Amino acid sequence: MGSGEISKDGDLAQLLGARGKPITVRLKSGERVQSTHGILQHDDLIGLKWGMRVKSHLGKSFTLLQPALDDLIRGLRRNTQILYPKDIGYILISMGIGPGQKVLEAGTGSGALTVALAYAVGPEGHVYSYEKRPETQTLAHSNVEGLGLADRVTFTVRDIAEGFDERGVQALYFDLPNPQDYLTQAREALQAGGFFGAILPTTNQVSILISALKKEHFSFIEVSEILHRYYNANARRLRPADTMTGHTGYLVFARRLSADAVDQERGKL
Amino acid sequence: MGSGEISKDGDLAQLLGARGKPITVRLKSGERVQSTHGILQHDDLIGLKWGMRVKSHLGKSFTLLQPALDDLIRGLRRNTQILYPKDIGYILISMGIGPGQKVLEAGTGSGALTVALAYAVGPEGHVYSYEKRPETQTLAHSNVEGLGLADRVTFTVRDIAEGFDERGVQALYFDLPNPQDYLTQAREALQAGGFFGAILPTTNQVSILISALKKEHFSFIEVSEILHRYYNANARRLRPADTMTGHTGYLVFARRLSADAVDQERGKL
Amino acid sequence: MGSGEISKDGDLAQLLGARGKPITVRLKSGERVQSTHGILQHDDLIGLKWGMRVKSHLGKSFTLLQPALDDLIRGLRRNTQILYPKDIGYILISMGIGPGQKVLEAGTGSGALTVALAYAVGPEGHVYSYEKRPETQTLAHSNVEGLGLADRVTFTVRDIAEGFDERGVQALYFDLPNPQDYLTQAREALQAGGFFGAILPTTNQVSILISALKKEHFSFIEVSEILHRYYNANARRLRPADTMTGHTGYLVFARRLSADAVDQERGKL
Amino acid sequence: MGSGEISKDGDLAQLLGARGKPITVRLKSGERVQSTHGILQHDDLIGLKWGMRVKSHLGKSFTLLQPALDDLIRGLRRNTQILYPKDIGYILISMGIGPGQKVLEAGTGSGALTVALAYAVGPEGHVYSYEKRPETQTLAHSNVEGLGLADRVTFTVRDIAEGFDERGVQALYFDLPNPQDYLTQAREALQAGGFFGAILPTTNQVSILISALKKEHFSFIEVSEILHRYYNANARRLRPADTMTGHTGYLVFARRLSADAVDQERGKL
Repeated sequence: MGSGEISKDGDLAQLLGARGKPITVRLKSGERVQSTHGILQHDDLIGLKWGMRVKSHLGKSFTLLQPALDDLIRGLRRNTQILYPKDIGYILISMGIGPGQKVLEAGTGSGALTVALAYAVGPEGHVYSYEKRPETQTLAHSNVEGLGLADRVTFTVRDIAEGFDERGVQALYFDLPNPQDYLTQAREALQAGGFFGAILPTTNQVSILISALKKEHFSFIEVSEILHRYYNANARRLRPADTMTGHTGYLVFARRLSADAVDQERGKL
Repeated sequence: MGSGEISKDGDLAQLLGARGKPITVRLKSGERVQSTHGILQHDDLIGLKWGMRVKSHLGKSFTLLQPALDDLIRGLRRNTQILYPKDIGYILISMGIGPGQKVLEAGTGSGALTVALAYAVGPEGHVYSYEKRPETQTLAHSNVEGLGLADRVTFTVRDIAEGFDERGVQALYFDLPNPQDYLTQAREALQAGGFFGAILPTTNQVSILISALKKEHFSFIEVSEILHRYYNANARRLRPADTMTGHTGYLVFARRLSADAVDQERGKL
Repeated sequence: MGSGEISKDGDLAQLLGARGKPITVRLKSGERVQSTHGILQHDDLIGLKWGMRVKSHLGKSFTLLQPALDDLIRGLRRNTQILYPKDIGYILISMGIGPGQKVLEAGTGSGALTVALAYAVGPEGHVYSYEKRPETQTLAHSNVEGLGLADRVTFTVRDIAEGFDERGVQALYFDLPNPQDYLTQAREALQAGGFFGAILPTTNQVSILISALKKEHFSFIEVSEILHRYYNANARRLRPADTMTGHTGYLVFARRLSADAVDQERGKL
Repeated sequence: MGSGEISKDGDLAQLLGARGKPITVRLKSGERVQSTHGILQHDDLIGLKWGMRVKSHLGKSFTLLQPALDDLIRGLRRNTQILYPKDIGYILISMGIGPGQKVLEAGTGSGALTVALAYAVGPEGHVYSYEKRPETQTLAHSNVEGLGLADRVTFTVRDIAEGFDERGVQALYFDLPNPQDYLTQAREALQAGGFFGAILPTTNQVSILISALKKEHFSFIEVSEILHRYYNANARRLRPADTMTGHTGYLVFARRLSADAVDQERGKL
């Protein structure tokens, strides 16, 4: 995101200090970064080589880097549980989401997946994001805008029981507690063979969704979970970190069959 | 990959039967698909709606679907251990690889990561892939070409001890046993702040790489592993599968600091 | 099991070859061991130091060792899925099973847990094992007898819906598909504060059991699972094994409250 | 530990409140339990049925239970990292530790494994525990004594480079950072075929130990790790807990060959 060896006005930048969370800012001449380790002037950051170390007015060192998608997602302001990079990466690969695609998600939440989808589909693709709570989507909108991805996303505040406006989308992702209630709406929006995905925290929800998917003639259902285990990056004392995230959610994927295939199927029964 | 509701000549297609591996083909009028469950004519598949079921001459049912990246990667012909989707997804997210980027990998192997990178960078991006064994790269080349991604990849047969031709690349990935031997070459090719990644099967190799990265002034080193656990998609008997992949490799990521930052750093010591 | 530096007639012994499964035998003068790597005479094994290597008539090397409980359990003849050492170890610790205790299990299955319980309670303790399929229990009986533990176990063939004969037992373990149906019987047999345990393969069964335990005033319910990951014991190429067991079962533990406590509890409601 | 339906003077008892850690006490007429949720008189607890609920002077409810080994271990006072029940259970099973055995451990640490070993070997067995830091062993001694297991354990303060006093022990466990330095001493103490075990936090230590074990003619080396994942015991919302312990240590097991077997082996080389 951004290119070239030298930072310039308007670029997203990340300041990594010896301690504490990375700070993500969009560089803008005249502004300044305030942190618990001191103040930095944007004008001192603009025009620097990426990877350089800079000092705050308190003499604390920061490295100026271009943020990765992973960093941006972790740095989003949130008012809901957000998806983790370990899950998002597998979702993108598993649903074949890439440049030029048209994808749909509900609910928007804090926009972590929205950002990842908008990034992955590129300027030629588009993301349609539905959410019923207006205040939640306002935050997501601001998160997406802050990363310069707003023109790739159409946000809609709606109870999706009323259906989606899009048809023929290649992939649809549900991050909401009761995906089983919106499978008819999902069928209408998805192209035949399109990818359905959902994340659910409890085993009970997974059981309910599997049943509903089978009833609605979704097929090739896959259920899995991803555990991500960090190690202490110490060459002489290499070992896993003491604690790890024990659970984020179960990932459920399926493919939408065409209406004709469903008829075929029913004929067979 | 491909779009529209109806399959057409030249599209990548996937045939999923009740049993056995999915079959991936590029549709071409006049050709036919041979499987252990019977023969299908490409001309019977072209013009069908995606998601339809078709029957082989033996009466066996197949569903015609557009393949996901995940499926394509799993279906590659291979003569080396290939990266798994669980790892590839996280690699893409963690290194911020997306549309329009210029990325570098060595070695090519069977091309699983090459395919994923080429898919993710889109038509505006480019992948530079190095490998010292010509016969390995020939297979990868054919895998990439079969998926219609050949114009996004430059393949080079070379011992990378001699260095890379590119400069200022945003991300570089090493899938080879001794990444520590090529960190100088990696520094030269990567832009300041650029993303370094590697996968290694043993803890001993990880320790060696961590040491070398620190010595070569790479920074923000992260080591982790990803465990992917499948469940039986049975609503009434939901449970993890009996066996799982116990290990693929340790994922190591780091950021390249700028030469100036290295000088700053040395001055500090 | 057994003691002293020198093997003697009647001891359980284990023969470990360079390849293949360990062979467990009870040493008996005049008998012989037949293996795919040749024949060994018991009389050549009796009187040897434990840990010695011996050769079969084909010249193949075996090491003579005293078997661990772990080895004995893995070596049992079985006609059902058996509990794994990783689970058994935690079950013993978690339910405080040790020398001198009186414990109850149903169903017996192939006797893996029976053996572990009989071993752990020692000559002063006792195990009561119920099973409704006579042929299953016959195998378990023979497994327990073969290890010299028969006098510590009382086997009963019965549908436990009819209840247990014992009262005041310290721990009770259910390895059967519908433990929720026998909680009244479990209450009657367990002493107040006694330990209840069960293993169940599916999440659905776990949910049902949790509900039933709460309804029957069991308390301090704990649900967990144990993943055991083997490494290749190679000093220079240390890494996890390629595949691992993905699932055995969910472990559920609870404590039986006294009847008075249940009355107290009801009064409170 | 303890028996009968009714608590009596001298029994170990556990008080479980609605919140907070369980309180473990040895019942003694005239004493009292102070907790953040109020005071309880031992005399009000003695003679109660196990499993009953009692109220503190503040009206807070506690359940009176007999503690499991697991609870006792978790409740130990500690000045070092202690072994976890998940690891201890597998250690006991894997090394065949049971009633009547003679086992050795070094270092003592806070005595968690000491307690588990003393419990498992029963009144007929014995544990020999070595530690070089006197103050550490004082705590372990007091922990073991508090649980009424002191007569089953011999504590020795010594640098084990000087060797052990015992010979022919059936199992030996090292919970110290450099087990590779004491393998000669371990050989001398262990009977032929005896069980060697160790826990180590880092992969580097595991590699060093594997090399040393092979050089010292230990055999049947097994390396593994155990991950224990708790679930929320909620029937309608069953799911793993948000966080889990990511690492305790790698478990290494091996068998000591007899001196003769080593000679045989050397002759073969």
